[in-house]
This record gives sequence, C-alpha cells and structure tokens, in this order.
Amino acid sequence: MKYRIEKDTMGKVEVPANNYWGAQTERSRNNFKIGHSASMPLEIIYGFAYLKKAAAHTNYDLGVLSEEKRDLIAVVCDEILAGKLNDEFPLVIWQTGSGTQSNMNVNEVIANRAQEISGKIIGQDEPTIQANDDVNKSQSSNDTFPTAMHIACYKMLIDVTIPGIEKLRDTLQKKSIEFATVVKIGRTHLMDATPLTLGQEFSGYVSQLNHGLKALKNTLPHLAELALGGTAVGTGLNTPKGYDVLVAKKIAEFTGLPFITAENKFEALASHDAIVESHGALKQLAVSLNKIANDIRMMASGPRSGIGELIIPANEPGSSIMPGKVNPTQSEALTMVCAQVMGNDVAITVGGTQGHYELNVFKPLLASNFLQSARLIGDACASFNEHCAAGIQPNYSRITELLNNSLMLVTALNPKIGYYKAAEIANTAHKNGTTLKEEAIRLGYVTAEEYDAWVKPEDMIGSLK
Amino acid sequence: MKYRIEKDTMGKVEVPANNYWGAQTERSRNNFKIGHSASMPLEIIYGFAYLKKAAAHTNYDLGVLSEEKRDLIAVVCDEILAGKLNDEFPLVIWQTGSGTQSNMNVNEVIANRAQEISGKIIGQDEPTIQANDDVNKSQSSNDTFPTAMHIACYKMLIDVTIPGIEKLRDTLQKKSIEFATVVKIGRTHLMDATPLTLGQEFSGYVSQLNHGLKALKNTLPHLAELALGGTAVGTGLNTPKGYDVLVAKKIAEFTGLPFITAENKFEALASHDAIVESHGALKQLAVSLNKIANDIRMMASGPRSGIGELIIPANEPGSSIMPGKVNPTQSEALTMVCAQVMGNDVAITVGGTQGHYELNVFKPLLASNFLQSARLIGDACASFNEHCAAGIQPNYSRITELLNNSLMLVTALNPKIGYYKAAEIANTAHKNGTTLKEEAIRLGYVTAEEYDAWVKPEDMIGSLK
Amino acid sequence: MKYRIEKDTMGKVEVPANNYWGAQTERSRNNFKIGHSASMPLEIIYGFAYLKKAAAHTNYDLGVLSEEKRDLIAVVCDEILAGKLNDEFPLVIWQTGSGTQSNMNVNEVIANRAQEISGKIIGQDEPTIQANDDVNKSQSSNDTFPTAMHIACYKMLIDVTIPGIEKLRDTLQKKSIEFATVVKIGRTHLMDATPLTLGQEFSGYVSQLNHGLKALKNTLPHLAELALGGTAVGTGLNTPKGYDVLVAKKIAEFTGLPFITAENKFEALASHDAIVESHGALKQLAVSLNKIANDIRMMASGPRSGIGELIIPANEPGSSIMPGKVNPTQSEALTMVCAQVMGNDVAITVGGTQGHYELNVFKPLLASNFLQSARLIGDACASFNEHCAAGIQPNYSRITELLNNSLMLVTALNPKIGYYKAAEIANTAHKNGTTLKEEAIRLGYVTAEEYDAWVKPEDMIGSLK
Amino acid sequence: MKYRIEKDTMGKVEVPANNYWGAQTERSRNNFKIGHSASMPLEIIYGFAYLKKAAAHTNYDLGVLSEEKRDLIAVVCDEILAGKLNDEFPLVIWQTGSGTQSNMNVNEVIANRAQEISGKIIGQDEPTIQANDDVNKSQSSNDTFPTAMHIACYKMLIDVTIPGIEKLRDTLQKKSIEFATVVKIGRTHLMDATPLTLGQEFSGYVSQLNHGLKALKNTLPHLAELALGGTAVGTGLNTPKGYDVLVAKKIAEFTGLPFITAENKFEALASHDAIVESHGALKQLAVSLNKIANDIRMMASGPRSGIGELIIPANEPGSSIMPGKVNPTQSEALTMVCAQVMGNDVAITVGGTQGHYELNVFKPLLASNFLQSARLIGDACASFNEHCAAGIQPNYSRITELLNNSLMLVTALNPKIGYYKAAEIANTAHKNGTTLKEEAIRLGYVTAEEYDAWVKPEDMIGSLK
Repeated sequence: MKYRIEKDTMGKVEVPANNYWGAQTERSRNNFKIGHSASMPLEIIYGFAYLKKAAAHTNYDLGVLSEEKRDLIAVVCDEILAGKLNDEFPLVIWQTGSGTQSNMNVNEVIANRAQEISGKIIGQDEPTIQANDDVNKSQSSNDTFPTAMHIACYKMLIDVTIPGIEKLRDTLQKKSIEFATVVKIGRTHLMDATPLTLGQEFSGYVSQLNHGLKALKNTLPHLAELALGGTAVGTGLNTPKGYDVLVAKKIAEFTGLPFITAENKFEALASHDAIVESHGALKQLAVSLNKIANDIRMMASGPRSGIGELIIPANEPGSSIMPGKVNPTQSEALTMVCAQVMGNDVAITVGGTQGHYELNVFKPLLASNFLQSARLIGDACASFNEHCAAGIQPNYSRITELLNNSLMLVTALNPKIGYYKAAEIANTAHKNGTTLKEEAIRLGYVTAEEYDAWVKPEDMIGSLK
Repeated sequence: MKYRIEKDTMGKVEVPANNYWGAQTERSRNNFKIGHSASMPLEIIYGFAYLKKAAAHTNYDLGVLSEEKRDLIAVVCDEILAGKLNDEFPLVIWQTGSGTQSNMNVNEVIANRAQEISGKIIGQDEPTIQANDDVNKSQSSNDTFPTAMHIACYKMLIDVTIPGIEKLRDTLQKKSIEFATVVKIGRTHLMDATPLTLGQEFSGYVSQLNHGLKALKNTLPHLAELALGGTAVGTGLNTPKGYDVLVAKKIAEFTGLPFITAENKFEALASHDAIVESHGALKQLAVSLNKIANDIRMMASGPRSGIGELIIPANEPGSSIMPGKVNPTQSEALTMVCAQVMGNDVAITVGGTQGHYELNVFKPLLASNFLQSARLIGDACASFNEHCAAGIQPNYSRITELLNNSLMLVTALNPKIGYYKAAEIANTAHKNGTTLKEEAIRLGYVTAEEYDAWVKPEDMIGSLK
Repeated sequence: MKYRIEKDTMGKVEVPANNYWGAQTERSRNNFKIGHSASMPLEIIYGFAYLKKAAAHTNYDLGVLSEEKRDLIAVVCDEILAGKLNDEFPLVIWQTGSGTQSNMNVNEVIANRAQEISGKIIGQDEPTIQANDDVNKSQSSNDTFPTAMHIACYKMLIDVTIPGIEKLRDTLQKKSIEFATVVKIGRTHLMDATPLTLGQEFSGYVSQLNHGLKALKNTLPHLAELALGGTAVGTGLNTPKGYDVLVAKKIAEFTGLPFITAENKFEALASHDAIVESHGALKQLAVSLNKIANDIRMMASGPRSGIGELIIPANEPGSSIMPGKVNPTQSEALTMVCAQVMGNDVAITVGGTQGHYELNVFKPLLASNFLQSARLIGDACASFNEHCAAGIQPNYSRITELLNNSLMLVTALNPKIGYYKAAEIANTAHKNGTTLKEEAIRLGYVTAEEYDAWVKPEDMIGSLK
Repeated sequence: MKYRIEKDTMGKVEVPANNYWGAQTERSRNNFKIGHSASMPLEIIYGFAYLKKAAAHTNYDLGVLSEEKRDLIAVVCDEILAGKLNDEFPLVIWQTGSGTQSNMNVNEVIANRAQEISGKIIGQDEPTIQANDDVNKSQSSNDTFPTAMHIACYKMLIDVTIPGIEKLRDTLQKKSIEFATVVKIGRTHLMDATPLTLGQEFSGYVSQLNHGLKALKNTLPHLAELALGGTAVGTGLNTPKGYDVLVAKKIAEFTGLPFITAENKFEALASHDAIVESHGALKQLAVSLNKIANDIRMMASGPRSGIGELIIPANEPGSSIMPGKVNPTQSEALTMVCAQVMGNDVAITVGGTQGHYELNVFKPLLASNFLQSARLIGDACASFNEHCAAGIQPNYSRITELLNNSLMLVTALNPKIGYYKAAEIANTAHKNGTTLKEEAIRLGYVTAEEYDAWVKPEDMIGSLK
C-alpha cells in the first residue's frame, strides 16, 4: 500500500495515500484495535455531515468564514450524506470517549476532499481548508459529538423505529376489530379463566403499543436539544454571538426535524440523560413487544399438542431434522431483539452515570447502543408485522373446543349463588371429570334452565367493550 | 398461642385467635416462608384500603351493596389507613404473582374486623360481611392488586419522590446563582480544560433534575389509569354498569389524586408497562443524581491532596482509625441508592416482560421494587440536600490557584494565532514546566500586552450565560 | 424519651438513655433518614460480632489487649450472636459507603454494654472499654466491614442457599428416576417435537442445578478471603505482626467456616470482586430456576384448556373471583425471586465497578443485595420443593393423548426414506387433519407394517439414556 | 443479478446464481431483514465448520456415511475455516432462535460447494451431497448450534480474551515491583488517607485480575461440554451408537481444545447456563478492569489541576479545540467496553432464562453477545496494555508533595496517644492550615523528637508487604 505523510500537533504520521483521512484518524486506527474496524455507526458520521455543513453556513452568516470555504465544506458534507465517502471512516466505537477522533476523522476527510475538489494536492499543497481552524470552527468534539448523536438517534427513531412500531400497531388494531366476536377462554396464571374475545386480547396489545409510542414521543423534546455552540466545556468559548441558536436552526432545516439549541449546554456535554430517557422508552417498548410476541407464539403452539388457538404463517422449514416442522420464528427474532434492547439499556445506564465534571466520556458507547436498539426494534416490528402479524388467523374449532371445556365459566354464577357454592361446583366437576352443568344441577344449586340462562360465555365478555 | 378455626373453599385452617386475618391469609403464611415476614409493603395495603372503600361506595351507589355493609367496610378501611391494623398484614412479597393472597388478606381483615365492630364473634357467629361476596364484590385480585399498585406508587411519587428531588433542585439552583461569578477551571476527560463558573457547573445539575422531573411527570398519566372494573380477565365480568368509571372517580376523591379508569383493562391486567415506564424515569433520575453526587465528592476531595475546590459539611467522624477524617458520606448514600434503583429497573424490566395471556403474575415484585426506588430517591435527595448540598461552599483560594495554573487557557488564542501555534505554546509550557505567557512570548507568537488582553479566564466563560 | 450525653471527636450528642449505642450511631441515625430504619441486615451485625471477638482474642494473644478487656468484649459479642441486642442496631444501609457507622455502632454497643457488665454507669463513669481504642483495636472500618460482609454472605450461602437448592435438586432427581419410563411429546420452539421421557426432561433440571451448585462452590474460595488486618488502606498499619493470619484463623474457628486472610489486602478493601463473583453464580442459579419453574407451570397449565401434562399440588384457592381456581403459585414466587436476583446482580455490578483508589464505598449496598439474593434463593427453593416439586405427578392419560397426536413422530422415518419424503408425509397429514400413518401409506412411502415397526415413540427416546 | 432455482420442503426459491447457499438461506434472508446483513458472527460459522467435519468423520467411522462424502464435506469445511467462503453466510443474528437457518446455510453451502468440487452443476445435476441427509446427518440444529456456540466462545476466550488479560496483568505485575518503594498518599472515600506504596496499589490490580482469570477458567469445564449427539430434543434420535462421545473427541482433536460430550444433553439444548456462567466471569472482569482503568485515569488527571501522580503516554491530540490537551483515552475505551459487557450480561441473563421445554430459542442472541464481550475485553486489554499501562511512570515530585501534605499521617500516633488526641491534632491543623507537627507539639501531646520518630510515611506502609 502507498502512503503519504500527514501531520498534526504531535508530529508526522504515514497515512494510506488513497484515503482522505489524516494524521489523527490514522493515530486512532493504530491505537484502538478493539473489535471490528469501522464499527462507529455511519449514522453518526452522517450526523456530523449535517452539523459541519450547518456550522459552515452559520460561521459564514456570522462573518467568521469565507463564502468559498463554506461552499467547499458544504459540498463535501453532501457527498458524505449521499454515501459516497463511506469507506473514509475506519474508526471504532472503542476510542476516546468524547468521540474526538471521529470528529477529527470527519474534519480531516472534509478538508482533504475539499483540497482535491479545489484542484490541489493533498498533503503537499497549502491546504485550502484547515481541519481544525475551518471545518471545526466554532466547535469542539465535546459539542459536536453529542450533536451528531442526537441527530442520528432522532432520525433513526423517526425513520425506522416509529414507523415499524406503527405498522405493527395498525395490523394488531385491524386484527382486534376482525376478531371482535371470537369468544375464547381467558387464561390467568397460565390457567383457564373466564372468557373474553380474541379481539379484546389483541386490543390489549394495541393499547400497550399506543402507550409505548406516546412514551417514546414524550422523550423527543429532550432529544431535540442540541449541544452545538457549547464548544469545549459548555460556555461557548470561541463562538460568535448568536451561533448556537442559528446553527440549530440550520440543522433543523437540513434534516427536516425540530432541533433546537439546548437551553443548558453544561448538561448537554456532561451528561446524556436525553439518551438515557429516550432509550428508556425503547426498553419499555421492548417489554411490551416481548409480551405480545410471547402470547402469539404460545397461542399458536402445537400444531396438535399445544394451545393451538392461532394459526400463524409458515414461512420456512423449521427444523433440519424434524420434517414438516414450522416454528414461530418471527416471535423468536423479535424477543431476541427485546432481550438485546434490555441489555443495551443497562449499558446506556452505566455509561450515562459516568459523566465527570464537564464531560461524559462514554459517548460512542451510548450512541452505538441506542442506534442498535432503535434500528432493531423498528426492523423487527416491520418484519414481525409483515411475516407474522398480518397473517394471523384464529383456529376457530380449537378455540370453541377449549372455551366450552372450561370450568371457569362457573364464575358467572357468583352473583346468583355466591362464591362458595360456585367453587363447590367447579371443584366437584374437576374431581369427577364432569361438566359444570351436570354438577350444578346434581348439587341442587341451579336448575338446568337457570344454568343455561346464566352461564353463557358470550355474555361474560364484558360490561366493558 | 391460641387459635380459632377459619375456613375457605378448600377447608378448615387454624388461625391465630388474636388476629383478624382468615383462612387464606394463614395458608399463604404457611406456604410462602420466603424472606422476612410481612415484606409486602404497607403502601400496597393502604392502596387496597382506598380501593375497597371506593368499591363499597360504588357498589352501594349502583345498588348492589347495602348501606350498612358499605359503612362497615368503609370504617375498617379508614382504620387501616390510620395505621391501626398494621400488624394484620403478615404476608410476603414472594407469594402468588397476582397478589391474590394479599387481596384476600385485606378482604378477610375487613370482614372480621367488621364482624367485631358489629358486636359479633369472629369465626363463630354468622358473618355480617363476607370476604369474597361483599368486600371483594365487583372485584378480582387481578384488577384490585394493580389498582393498589398504581395508588401506592403514584402516592409515593407525589408524597416523597418529587418533593425530595425538588428540594435538592431548588438548593442547587440557589447555589448556581450564588456561585455565578466564581470562575474556575473546567475539566473534560478528568483533565484540565477551559474555564467556566462554578455557577454554570451547578446550572447543569439543575437542568438535569428539571429534565428528569419533567420525564417523571410525563409518566404520571399512564400511572393514573386504574385497572379496577376489569375483574378477572379485563372484561368486567360481574360488575354493574358504570362501575369502572365511578370507582375510579371515588378513588380520585379519596386520595386527592387524578386517577381515572384505564381505557383498556386488558392491558391493565396483563402487562404493567405503566410501572415500567414510570420506573424508567426513576432510573433516569438515578443516572442524573449519580453524576451530581460524584462531581460534588470529587470536587470536595482532599482536604489537601485532592481537588479541594468545594467545602462540604463535616457531619460525622469519617474513620474509626484515621483521626480527623471527614468523608463525603451523603454522596455515598445517594450513589448507593442510585445503584439500587438501576438494579431495581432490571428486576422491573424482567418482571414486566413476563405477562402471559390475560395476566402478568410478577405484580408484587414490580410493586415492591418500584416503591423501594421511589422512596429511596425521595429520601436520599432530601438527606443529601439537607446534610450536604445546602452547606456547600467554594474553597476560593484553591479554585483560583488551580485556575491560574491551567494550560488550557491557551484556547483563547485559537482565533488569534490558530490551533497549531496555540498547541505549540501549551506543549512547550507543559514540557518545560513554565507558564503559557512565558512560552507564548518566547516563541514570538504574541506580545505580553496581547497575551494579557486575550487570555482572561473571566472572558472565557461564555457567549452563553 | 430520656436521653444521655455521649461524645465523639466532633463533640456532644444526645442519645436515647435506654440504648447502648453512642454518639456516632446517633449522628448517623439523624443524618441518614433514608428508607426504613434498621435496614442494615442483622447478618452483617453478627459478622461484626464474630470478628470483634476474634480481634479481641488476637490482640490479647499478640500482647496488645488485656485479658479483662478481651473477655468483656467477647461476652458482649456472644450476646449479640445470641440475638439479645438486636434492637441496638438502628442504622440503615444508605449511610457512608464504607459502613463506618455500623462498625462504630457495634464498637459503641460493645463498649457501653461492657461498661454495664462491669458495673459502671454508661456515659458517666470512666469507660472500662474504649470503642475506638479497644473494641476497634488493630482494625479500621475499611477492613472490618468487608470482613463482616464475607462472614455474613458465606454463612448465608452455607446455611440457607445451598441447602435450599440441594433439597430441590434431590427431589427433582428422585422425580427424574420415578418418571424414567413416562414417554411424552417433546417441544421445541413451543411446538410439537420428537418424544422423550418425563424423566429425561427432569434430568435436565437436575443437571442445571448441579452445574449451578458447582459454579457457586467455585466462588467460595474467593469469598473465604478476609480483609481483616489491612486496616485503613490495606497496609495493615497499627496491627501487630502476625495479626492478619491469626485473626482469620480465629474467625474460622468461631464460625466453623474455612476463612483465611486475603493474600492481597489492597484488593480486599478497594474492590469487592468476590461478592461480584459469588453473586454471579447466584444469578446463574436464578436463570436455571426460572427455566425450571416456567416449564413446570407450563406443563401444569389447564386444567382443561392448557397443556395439562403435570399435576401440581393445590395449596390455596387461586382466585378471589373465579371459584375453584388453582394456580402455580410456587412457580410464581420462585420466578419473582429470580427476577429480583437478576436485578440485584446489576446493582452489585454497578456497585462493584465504583471502587476508587484504596476503597470501594458501595459496601452496604453490595452486602444487602447479596444477602437478599442468597436468602431468597434458598428460601424459595425450599418452599418450591416442599409445596410444589415434591408433589408433582404426571397426568398419564393427557401425556399419552398428546404424544400419540404428534406429527413429529415422522422424524423416525428420516433414516429410512429421507428428510424430504418424511416432510411430505407430515405436511400432508397436517393439511388434511389426518394421521401420519394414513398419509405415509397413502403416499406409498411405507407399508403399514413398516410404519408400525419404525415409528415407535418408545424407541425414539434415545441412544442416550 | 442472475438467479438459479433451489428448493426445499416448502417449494422453490430464487437464489443468487453466484452463491452457494440454497433455498432455506434465501428464505431467511428475505424473512429477516433486521439490522445489518451477515451479522451472525463468522466465529459461529467456523464453529459449524469444525463440527460438520467432525460429524462427517464420525458418521463415516460409525458406518453411516461413505468415505467419498466424508472427504467432500471435510474439504469444504477446511475451505470455510481458511476464510475462503466468508461471503457465503449472509444471515443475521435476528432469525429463528434455534439458529436453524444458519445451520442450514452451512449445510447448503457445503452441499453446493461439494457439488461444484465434484464437477457437477449446482441446482441442476443430481446432488452428490444432500444438505439435510448428508451434511446434517446425525444432527439437528438444536444440537449443532449450541455446539458451534461453545466452540466459538471457548476459542475466543483462549485465543483473544485470556491472552489480552494476561498481557495486562503481567505489565501491572511488573509495574507493581518497579514501584515497590514509591511511598504515596492513600485515598479512601476519595479523601486523603494513610500512605501506601504505588507498588502496593498496583498489586491490588494484579490480584483482581488473577482472581478474575481464575474465575473465568473455573467456567471452562462447563463450556467444554458439547450438545452434539442430542439431535432434536436431547435424546440422540437418529444417531448411531457411540456417536456423541466420538464426535466430541474429533472436535477436540480438530480444534486442539478439551471438548467433551455433555453428560446431559437435555440441559445442553434447553438451557445455556454454561454461556451464562462463563459470561458472568467476563462481567466480573469488566468490573475489575473498570476499577483499574478509573484509578489510573484519576491518578493521571491534570496535568496541573488534578491529582497528577501518574504520567501516562500521550498517544494523540486530545481535543479539536483545546491545543496541547492529552487525555486518558485508553481508559475511556476500556471503561466503555466494560459498560458494554455489563449490558451484554443482562441480555444474556434474559436470554438464558427463556428456555422452554426442550429448547432455548435465544441462541443467536446469546452467542453474539458473548462473542462481542470476549473479543472486546481481550482486544481492549491488549490495547490498554500496549498504549497505556506499559508506559505508566510515577510523577515523583508530585507524589512526594501530596504525601507530605497529608493530615492522615496522624494515624501513626493512635497507638501512642490514642484516637481522640490524634483527632484533635488533625482537626486543629486542618482548621488552622498548619502542619500536623506544629499542632502536635503546640497541643503538648508529643515532642518534636517523638513526632519525627513516630510519624514516618515509610514506616506506615505495612506489616503487610
């Protein structure tokens, strides 16, 4: 491989000749060989591209950057956002906790690519654009990295997470209406209980997701606050007046999302409670989705020796040894995602606690865990929706069989004969393997006519809808 | 000990003669010897007392309970709420996951105490009030226990948690204003950085707590939803029409809190996302408080060989072997509480995922962890506030000494001479153990006059306030 | 209430006249009103009693304490261990993170009770025994508290946790043998799979618990290492030569447990990896127990509309509204305990990470979470064993019915006709609602005789035992 | 792109013509678009290659596979292990929880590549090797996937994790000896305490890592147990006699690691306690490493306004805005890794609990989290060792300055004048800003000669080494 010489304030470094990155990126590549290379999420790089462009525009507007420099920086940022420079960001998550090296990676790539666009030779001609003095003007890693985090995380929620959940919610809502009259046995403690409709069961899932979406949206205003303008420690040192408000406005404009400048920049650098808060809502959704996916696979269990009340799509052969086996694989993928999100929540919690003084230095950890969770929940909901939920059908005959077997229909007699006599009927039928009706009559507590009039599953599904 | 005979649907049980509880409570006492007795939080019992009273009133209003029974039930509920019957609730958290046995404990105590009030003999005379048919009328454990949980948790947040946090927030806010002009060195990565004021530092803490309080309050509407009226599986079987709305209204009236009936009872029984959601906010606050408590003890470290910028109250001798030692013990208590809350969050997450079909049977676990977290955060904030935060004073001489030493004041030169030359000045001063000014002049980058004009800590604290 | 005046190095304090504790205990009571009073586990206090007695004996043996003082201290320690002074330890977990105040609580109680035994007046006559100079001689909170932790935690594992698990393991082992010939359907992905015996299923649980017990016992040597002798920072300052080894030997003798002095005292004060390690094994056991308890309640689900393969004891009425309902309450209690242990593991992990320099100041948090987990696992296993596992019976008719229904018996044909043809048989039978045999013959892949010879559930249960 | 037609028991599928994978892989690709493609770790694929080769050899030895087929399968497995077919494994973690689809991916790639090697046309000529009947002979996904997990995880521990930790441990051990005479101030509660040597401090770190390594090695025997031979549900259906023992022996031979067949295959499929156990040890190491990395960055803090006792290597410019700043970036990378491992531990715990009946279907989640943790800890330790630990130097002048300032040297007077008078000296010196010696003499408790004789930091570092 061919190399060129780049330098930074510590001296000279050999850098691959065909890449735009510079000395500091290369130092980081060499100093942090931890896990797979280029693990820093591209979404963070794109977040940087938005903010570098916004900063260049703002610096121009406030009179501290030339028009030429502004336009050069903006052009390269657009190239990054178009995915043309993806290979130029080789750094890992496990670097400095401020993400300084990824900030410099972006600064260096913009400066060198701008150099090339200007028709000059990288590492040789006088730079048109300086990585620190121009691209990073009015900025610090300490305010840019959290800004890139918020842009990336917010976008992921809007683009992937929320649409995925909403798709699934809509399908479950549709199914809830579709199944509104399918009376089935209820189960509490995994044991037979009084009846309800399958539609009511699904309405609970819808309600869970609606509450979860509301909780997630409640966290967005905190996540919309941007640190940019705080620079090194939150004071805004070396920024022109009005910079923070204006740069947030431009980021909002470029991304189409309602970003604003953080009211308190000291918090915005030193802690990442907005990430903790928003991921808390993702964890809540993981809890809800876990319940839903579990219920569906349990109700679909069988086909012959399980519960068997639901029929779910058979998408692929389920076993390499058992012929003809079909498994609830979408539930499995989704619940694995849920477990991952619960784990990520702890990583984020631990990382979130460890801000010290003016800076939290667990930023790349926080960003990568958040982005993984948000992506996985969105994708898994879309997958579960398309390949499972949308195709769910009731197994009517099985549902009816199980409903009519149930001893818990006796509960309908409570208001008529009292809890104790009703219990006696159920216990006797259970012991004798008989029906409730037989025992109710034999014990002399009701007549056959009364039993038929009072014990009707379809009348037991609710004073509530 | 003397015993009397009580019975339930399974038969007879010997019960301590001097207690009000009945057969089912006694069975549970014997079947669940797990951990300390009476570990079920009293707050849950009080939650039950509110709801039993409200149910009795509602049942009367809707014509299914006599006035006499209503009043007897209400009288005993008031005794419970006055703390007069605290010893009558011996059950543990680690019982059935629906909390059925604690529901029955309350039902039995109310019925037997009512018997006594009516002048009849417990376990002998015909009961005036039936535990299942009267006290539990229009109810199931499955909707009462979650209702008691929401009442208990909501009350704890309002009575203990939020006031504790707000007290601390107010003190930090006061300190932030008081310290508004105390310029000090900033630290990022634990390393010397550019200056800020001590007031700015504290303003970050205030902003964290304000965001956390907002996040917590965002969760209250979900927690205000009550399951009561759903009975066994969410359908409201055996409840009179209008019961759910009315009983929630009465609970709201009796507690003075804005409870409403849950729109979807199936969710309210089968999952406890409201608890997960609200505890998520407590965990976020734990993350914030951990940061604040850590910062304060690090800044107060010393007295002679640490950072030493803050003076905190000396509340107690700190060491049994080192004479004269004083330690940041309030920070320690608070950060231990934070760690507990983080652990509790995982217990709640795990418990929250495991609802199956119509019921989540991790209810006592969820309630007890939530109540512990909410109590501890409130108490610990109040304690930290009173015994530490309120007495914090700056160590002015130390702050000034450390500020003036810092090499990072060189950052003020960036806009004048560029990042590279500024770095050269700092690196040289570091290597030579000299001052920035000496090296800045010696290297010929600035004059003494320029240096003095440009490098002023008090000018570096912000275009931001 | 009456008070007397006690003093410490900070001055005078009013202390309840009827209690033995002194100034520092009282300061802590007032300064840390966090959660319920006296939450510091008594097991920790007893651990202190063992070590204070051992220290007095060692100090005497090494010539730095008089025989009279040794004996007085020892007598009070024995009173503490006999539970006679339980009310003298009012402090909370949420105090200083070194547990200094509980160490002083013990020191003060021993000194004042010794004063009384000596016939002198507490707080008035010259003390016979000094809390710091005598009871705490050759000690610091920093080495006593972790020593008390290890004694308490080790004892709990030996006295409660391991016996509880072993009881359950033994019952499951007995059941595994008892059920060795009960052939039943297997289930993977919750779906019907090839058969196995109920005994094989239970053997898996036994193997889990055996592995878990082994893992737990692997952690005991680390937990057997005692910090005592390290004093303030691990150097053993102010201890006589040979003290650390001898005091550990005496603790071993008094407790009957194999304690030794920690090879490295710096680790033993500054980190609590032994607690983290040992609790990790408890968490592993929680994972195993969760699986076992879940399986049993799922197999016992029904009675009529679930799986219904197992019959578990009916210990109490299961519902306040559904008469005759019986629930798997022991599984519920046990899985709630498991969730608690998983949460506690995170609290311990977080606490374990935060040692700084020479001391970890999350000691009371670590101890209380560990003790709770160890107690709960032991108690819950014993309860589950007695009230559930010991009474488990197979529901033979249901097991046979479900076994014979299964389409996965087709797997036995793989080696005869290949996976593809076998799959075709199963898929066709599933589609048509027919039996495997019917379709196998109809498709012409086997004769009736071949089918009967090849597809025998009892031959499918293993080349393995 | 060009496609060919492949089929499985569900029918025909279009597959990219240039890839070896078949119908089931392609179905999975389409059905599970969750997160980045090909996220299933290659280490798992290599684990499969080892076991498929071992199974082919064992099947041949036991007379159920031809020599030709054995050799063809083995050749392709060797190609996989040589990394030649890395692009043929496009599946994601978030698929079926048994990993069936990755097992089939490997089966299909081996079958089709074998077809090519045999000179036949894939998807057209009669297959030489059948994916299910030959490559998967005597296997099920349910026993192969956990076997691949154990191979992959065990190898990672041996190849990456343990060597990384040992390197760091060795360096810290070397430093501990090197710094054996550097007397410095101790710190407890972050506050000044009695002295110790820097070597003693480092010896604590060594002891932590030695205990952690021992704990990790304690878990290896469980991880060495292989599920292979259990097939579908643990019974070993469709395996020849002796298969399980022999195939484990061959895997041991091919990998050079001490694998054995699991004594109980039901556990080995239905639960993954070995993964939980072993990852518990990784979490313990994360706790230890967090403490070490934190201590080092705190002691290296400054350079002028922090603790400043250690000098760590300056590897890269630390700030994009503050010139000349150097940060403890290796500590940051390492502590971020620790936080990730703590999060992964919860994901693994949750996944570990959810085995149901005969199978745990969180296998890919468990494997991927374990492998990430094991890789990151190993890499991060190696990085921290090379770029930080190996270059640590004491800042002698700063250490001496801080040592001599300390008021806690007064502890040396306890055995001479008692705790109370010693406390008075320290408190007075603190209040007056004077030295201990001045106040000790002024208060008349010691003479100057006594003070000098008794208070010597170098005599306070231990009766312990």
